Amino acid sequence: MKHALNITREENFADWYQEVISKADLAETSSTKGAMVVKPYGCAIWENIRNILDEKFKSLGIQNAMFPALIPVELLEKEAEHVQGFAKECVVITHHRLVEKDGKLEPDGELERPYILRPTSETIIGESFSKWVKSYRDLPLLINQWANVFRWEMRTRMFLRTSEFYWQEGHCVFANEKEADENARKMLEVYDDLLQNYYGICGIKGQKTEDEKFAGALKTYTIETLMQDGKALQTCTSHNLGQNFAYASEIKFTDENTKEQYAWTTSWGISTRSIGGLILSHSDDDGLVLPPKLAPYQVVIIPIVHDENKKSQIMEYCNKIKSSLSCRVLVDESFDTPQNKKWNWVRKGAPLRLEIGERDMESGSIFFVRRDKIMEKNNVSFDEFVGKYQSILNNIQSTLLQRTKDNLKAKTIRIESIEELRNISKKETLFFNIPYKFFGDSNLTKVMEENALSFRCIPFDEPDRVIVAKSY
Amino acid sequence: MKHALNITREENFADWYQEVISKADLAETSSTKGAMVVKPYGCAIWENIRNILDEKFKSLGIQNAMFPALIPVELLEKEAEHVQGFAKECVVITHHRLVEKDGKLEPDGELERPYILRPTSETIIGESFSKWVKSYRDLPLLINQWANVFRWEMRTRMFLRTSEFYWQEGHCVFANEKEADENARKMLEVYDDLLQNYYGICGIKGQKTEDEKFAGALKTYTIETLMQDGKALQTCTSHNLGQNFAYASEIKFTDENTKEQYAWTTSWGISTRSIGGLILSHSDDDGLVLPPKLAPYQVVIIPIVHDENKKSQIMEYCNKIKSSLSCRVLVDESFDTPQNKKWNWVRKGAPLRLEIGERDMESGSIFFVRRDKIMEKNNVSFDEFVGKYQSILNNIQSTLLQRTKDNLKAKTIRIESIEELRNISKKETLFFNIPYKFFGDSNLTKVMEENALSFRCIPFDEPDRVIVAKSY
Repeated sequence: MKHALNITREENFADWYQEVISKADLAETSSTKGAMVVKPYGCAIWENIRNILDEKFKSLGIQNAMFPALIPVELLEKEAEHVQGFAKECVVITHHRLVEKDGKLEPDGELERPYILRPTSETIIGESFSKWVKSYRDLPLLINQWANVFRWEMRTRMFLRTSEFYWQEGHCVFANEKEADENARKMLEVYDDLLQNYYGICGIKGQKTEDEKFAGALKTYTIETLMQDGKALQTCTSHNLGQNFAYASEIKFTDENTKEQYAWTTSWGISTRSIGGLILSHSDDDGLVLPPKLAPYQVVIIPIVHDENKKSQIMEYCNKIKSSLSCRVLVDESFDTPQNKKWNWVRKGAPLRLEIGERDMESGSIFFVRRDKIMEKNNVSFDEFVGKYQSILNNIQSTLLQRTKDNLKAKTIRIESIEELRNISKKETLFFNIPYKFFGDSNLTKVMEENALSFRCIPFDEPDRVIVAKSY
Repeated sequence: MKHALNITREENFADWYQEVISKADLAETSSTKGAMVVKPYGCAIWENIRNILDEKFKSLGIQNAMFPALIPVELLEKEAEHVQGFAKECVVITHHRLVEKDGKLEPDGELERPYILRPTSETIIGESFSKWVKSYRDLPLLINQWANVFRWEMRTRMFLRTSEFYWQEGHCVFANEKEADENARKMLEVYDDLLQNYYGICGIKGQKTEDEKFAGALKTYTIETLMQDGKALQTCTSHNLGQNFAYASEIKFTDENTKEQYAWTTSWGISTRSIGGLILSHSDDDGLVLPPKLAPYQVVIIPIVHDENKKSQIMEYCNKIKSSLSCRVLVDESFDTPQNKKWNWVRKGAPLRLEIGERDMESGSIFFVRRDKIMEKNNVSFDEFVGKYQSILNNIQSTLLQRTKDNLKAKTIRIESIEELRNISKKETLFFNIPYKFFGDSNLTKVMEENALSFRCIPFDEPDRVIVAKSY
């Protein structure tokens, strides 16, 4: 069977990924190195994610605020480990105007000290928090920011690694370690709910090893998801920052005994990178597959008009279907052939596609195809469809989740010796669940280097094991 | 009567403005020069504005997208007038990493050509549009972006003029001048509706003079609003860009006769600057006054507990009130005295403040004060309040609008000679409505320079006149 894309996953997974994105009209490159233009269809997915999360945050008492994108290097200099983590890939601002010289614009007005564009905002937010927090009564302080962030990566891939990306970053302050750690873990559960019940993706929750944790954090929690090619994607992280950033930013409070104490902070975030994970988890050789809860349009209706005299009646029937459904519906009235429209919406991953022609209109029936079961053609009455489309959408949602669960199960293997890891990882890209006691063994380090494996996480439910895998 | 602020408008309008902002907890400065931290309460106002506008845009078929914040100078160089408008105040990126030298972080990894941070996005969006637009069938193209923008201003004031601010920028492409101009004017009407019916602000709609229009535009439309001190604030603009940016970015389409043509573009935006206008329009010597439609909380309930034994009953009554109202309600349970809470919410401009003590709870009544009629105390039954709070909120909304209408009327004066303008503008800060035929007269130029007046707009309803005023 011919597929709707030119490149299959088996032929070239990386090229297939790019084709999914371009054919679904999600994003494109620009002349800004490594940055992407998020096109309307991709933007609508991010807006859905944003709305779901934002509502959840608000229900938890988390408030939004906005902090400067430009961070003075002086602030960065305060947290040494943090600097090490970000200095090598940051966008540096040195001047505040341009002048024309020989017909070209050149930097002018040099700043006394440079700024960087936020790669993350712990330092600049910490500065404000040191003013906002005075007493134990100001705690907990629960703040979130929706923002663009900048990391000058050398090798970029749309959504997965771009020089500018979009995220939310939560930043919270607590009176003690227990509450901070509970918050960091709780927010990971919020992400897990988002990933499982909206993205339809099941991953492994756990803690990062010392080398892999966030620059400056005490503990980093993560959800590692397994893509169709067996590689890991760190989809979100939540950090217990201990008192490191409180020391650096002087976030102090007076406790119940009027004693001054340094606070405990957390930060947690999920970014447009997760849309890369969404694409890599569900899409197939016909293009994007979207879970209904994140799809810009959950139902797309394609009118099929052969006889122009019947057009208005067919359109009327299409619009009647649309107005009978309580979900995001599009009647595709664009100028194109029904055949092209069909393949367009296959490639764009619309969960339910309806094709409505003269015969359907006359018999009051509906022809529909599920994107996740592309070979299955369905023909039902109008009433039957209206009665069950919600449960079909729910079923698509849960089917996608189940597939990632099955994939995770099938591609995670338990390994009990370094030799075994060497043999299998040479041939296969999988999640390797190995004993944590191997950690630090020079043979393990060697095998991991040879096969480009990295420590992904220590699973919450198996603290004596660690997951190693290739990763994005 | 003592006021809730330390500084009155009469004493020092500029300092009063800053005090309104800080006491209402809207925003604060940071160590990033000229940038502001938008605190949760200020951010909630911007989110309300964003949600209202975004829904409106979507109903008009406008789609959101996201474009890079970094613009290569090469793109900027393509539109000469545009460069002139922004080169003097732009944030310039020259390096892509930091290295430590003598304990300090220094720029490293110089870029071949610099980038600037978007002061506006015509050039980078034009690059994408040149790829998106091929045929007349792709038109009109209606795109919007919610974004942060950067202009390195020397003198900054919170909300009104900051080195980083937040806005939406609409960018549209049309097949001909007529449609482009209609769009630019239509979007101004959208803003006018937003300002009048949500911000509660009435302004003058008109066209900018040649010198005052947007760098690179054919025509700029504006709404000039009059602040309480008589100065003008340009609250939003909408530009008919003609074919200037289409030429610069090569935005071309094949028309119905298969002939290739350059397109016509528009752009239009409103920013967090408009929150400065909101503050300057409605606030008084007791602090912020918010129109209910933009207020984070429309009703604030302050429990007054003198006897701890009655606390749970009073709280229960407060929560009963809250759950009976279909609007944004807060029961202020913070740790503070009722008196402090009261003045806090006066300064924060909550439209309706309820103070609920033991007697109110026992008699089932409600004591409330309107923020716009601060001397008026009201005591009504629970049922009466639930029956009429919506109409009270509507009345507050229309009262605020009417005040700005009255202010605009009272402070706009018609002037028929340059001499008259000289005499009055020396003494008073007002909107001067003068004959357009004076335009270009050297005496007028002199008078305007002497009194720091500028051309605000040629009113739509009086094309033979022009408004001159001092401005923010």
